[in-house]
Amino acid sequence: MGIEIERKFLVTGEAWRSMGQSIPLVQGYLAGSDQATVRVRIAGDTGFLTVKGRVKNLTRQEFEYEIPVADAEAMMDLCQPRVVEKTRYKIPIENLIWEVDEFAGTNQGLVLAEVELTSPEQFVSLPSWIGLEVSDDPRYFNSYLAAHPYSTWPNGSSPHPE
Amino acid sequence: MGIEIERKFLVTGEAWRSMGQSIPLVQGYLAGSDQATVRVRIAGDTGFLTVKGRVKNLTRQEFEYEIPVADAEAMMDLCQPRVVEKTRYKIPIENLIWEVDEFAGTNQGLVLAEVELTSPEQFVSLPSWIGLEVSDDPRYFNSYLAAHPYSTWPNGSSPHPE
Repeated sequence: MGIEIERKFLVTGEAWRSMGQSIPLVQGYLAGSDQATVRVRIAGDTGFLTVKGRVKNLTRQEFEYEIPVADAEAMMDLCQPRVVEKTRYKIPIENLIWEVDEFAGTNQGLVLAEVELTSPEQFVSLPSWIGLEVSDDPRYFNSYLAAHPYSTWPNGSSPHPE
Repeated sequence: MGIEIERKFLVTGEAWRSMGQSIPLVQGYLAGSDQATVRVRIAGDTGFLTVKGRVKNLTRQEFEYEIPVADAEAMMDLCQPRVVEKTRYKIPIENLIWEVDEFAGTNQGLVLAEVELTSPEQFVSLPSWIGLEVSDDPRYFNSYLAAHPYSTWPNGSSPHPE
């Protein structure tokens, strides 16, 4: 059991690209309810099964288990078509790790940055390539993007669709 | 990854009750889709997280992971109100294990027996307390019972509701 406290932002420019190491991620959503989402992820050659609760005040419960990658691959079929592909860059700045997700496939064009905190009130110094905060915008949840890819948004190339 | 091949029956009488050992089960459903259900189970003092695919020809994919019971307890809250309580009796007969589930709470009055097979065509000798086969009746899926408890069925006390 864990608690995830996270802020999320749109990303501007390219300066972040050379600042960290990257790993390919593929993740699908088995199912979602009002209260929880269930995610299967393949990160490089490792599989994970993750249950997340609802977000409230930047915070949500998270339960993550490493699983055999063959299981994750088989379960990905049960997620179709709700699968998200992206490359994740981990960028250490001061005492924080920024995770920049460059989406691919049907979400190509979207780049998001997340930073995990120890409390919702923690001060965060924003790098120059950080744009609009979208922590509270459910359209940027990966589970939403899986069902409603960025390329299908009414103004998909704009940071303010709809 | 595993494959579950299973037949399911209504149970008649009480003769089964003294034939095996029992364990209390509480299980909830985090979420379901057309393709998969995700179950949290507490069996005695052990937790499990289980993903199951759709049933086809008595067969479904099953992915089960043991998890800390504290995680399972916390996730049970994310399943509310879709939780099923029952006592499971494991009854060995010939070379098969019959699992008789005596439901409690909002599903009280329902008793089901399941038997796991190695192929859908495997011959099964039916004990005298086995009633109507309900393998293909989706109302007897535990995930359905979680959302539509037996006590709320139009003819809840009959083996042939609706």
